[in-house]
Amino acid sequence: MSQTEENSPQPSSGETPVPQAVVNRLSLYLRELQHLVRDGNETASSTQIGKLLGFTDAQVRKDLAYFGPFGYPGVGYRCQELIDAIKKILGTNQVWPVVLIGTGNLGRALLGYRGFGNQGFRVVAAFDADAGKVGRKIDGIDVLPLDDLKKTIESQNIRIAILAVPSPAAQLVAEKLVEAGISGILNFAPVTLTVSKDVHVVGVDLAIELEQLAYAVVNRQARE
Amino acid sequence: MSQTEENSPQPSSGETPVPQAVVNRLSLYLRELQHLVRDGNETASSTQIGKLLGFTDAQVRKDLAYFGPFGYPGVGYRCQELIDAIKKILGTNQVWPVVLIGTGNLGRALLGYRGFGNQGFRVVAAFDADAGKVGRKIDGIDVLPLDDLKKTIESQNIRIAILAVPSPAAQLVAEKLVEAGISGILNFAPVTLTVSKDVHVVGVDLAIELEQLAYAVVNRQARE
Repeated sequence: MSQTEENSPQPSSGETPVPQAVVNRLSLYLRELQHLVRDGNETASSTQIGKLLGFTDAQVRKDLAYFGPFGYPGVGYRCQELIDAIKKILGTNQVWPVVLIGTGNLGRALLGYRGFGNQGFRVVAAFDADAGKVGRKIDGIDVLPLDDLKKTIESQNIRIAILAVPSPAAQLVAEKLVEAGISGILNFAPVTLTVSKDVHVVGVDLAIELEQLAYAVVNRQARE
Repeated sequence: MSQTEENSPQPSSGETPVPQAVVNRLSLYLRELQHLVRDGNETASSTQIGKLLGFTDAQVRKDLAYFGPFGYPGVGYRCQELIDAIKKILGTNQVWPVVLIGTGNLGRALLGYRGFGNQGFRVVAAFDADAGKVGRKIDGIDVLPLDDLKKTIESQNIRIAILAVPSPAAQLVAEKLVEAGISGILNFAPVTLTVSKDVHVVGVDLAIELEQLAYAVVNRQARE
């Protein structure tokens, strides 16, 4: 099924920003398409793409129609073509070099996390305030002193940083990152960072996911 | 400002499910209210609650109105009262015992993650398939063999599990969890789990957050 059907809105004019929730779902569609390709599928319907994610076919078509007419009547979506298009929209058709700050358990786990590399992100350096940790290599990545932050970010034109430092240090390190030219921060410290408006911060609060699970479990019980 | 103004919808009848996005935002409002209380505020306006999160006051009022009339004319919201109400809605007004499976770097990071305890989740036991890791204590939590999974989950009536095992093991362990009575799984393995419909799975794919950052950085550049 193509996405140019009843339920599809007019493609955006490019003036109105696309709703954040739609951009978020693009990532989910991308994963599903990558799985479909891995399983040998060349084309996919909106129903297939939505199915495992729990979205209706209409929702999938409507979301994708924001960005262009990707479907082919009688064919559906061509998986690899749509993957390439979504990556271009998200900006992950290029490899983003990123830095990671903080090499505690969480930082080390993130350095070993293959999901980043698979999706176009390469951690080029890790930083730690602890001199005892500096100079080591973790998963092939050098651990550098915080003093080298600016030099590394500037010389490699890095835009995105992953912040995995303890909460009390997070704000100060975030300021250093912004000063060095970072414009996107993935923040794992459970604190709200105050940075200038043109810097984008995504906070990862793992307890939120658990809360959402608790809600689902409680409401499932209530329905039974 | 109270939430019973123009922009508020009628509270839901209890029949229509609340949109997932609204439930998601409840967690964000909860965090903001907790920060406001920590900073000594007894009451808060919808503007204050939305401000740091980037939501309009109308959005905040509309979302909260799904669950009841929480605002007081001329006062706003009473922070602690609203915190208690949201926790009751989410189900985190009780402490949820949870189990964690997999004690690699990520599992160990999660065992040390204070955010869980702060929000009403207590990891009561960790499990690992590796006999060499069994018997240890990590952050005060016993690492048990996978064979003890069912016994532990049943005896402590545990409903939620955190899955931090390598991808190839994830599906099998998820099945064991469901068999043992788990109804909510927080899945950190970058694979889609297939479980029965009444089990709720929340997948944490950390690359998605990075993709969203990339989109924000690219679109900021485009606007400049």
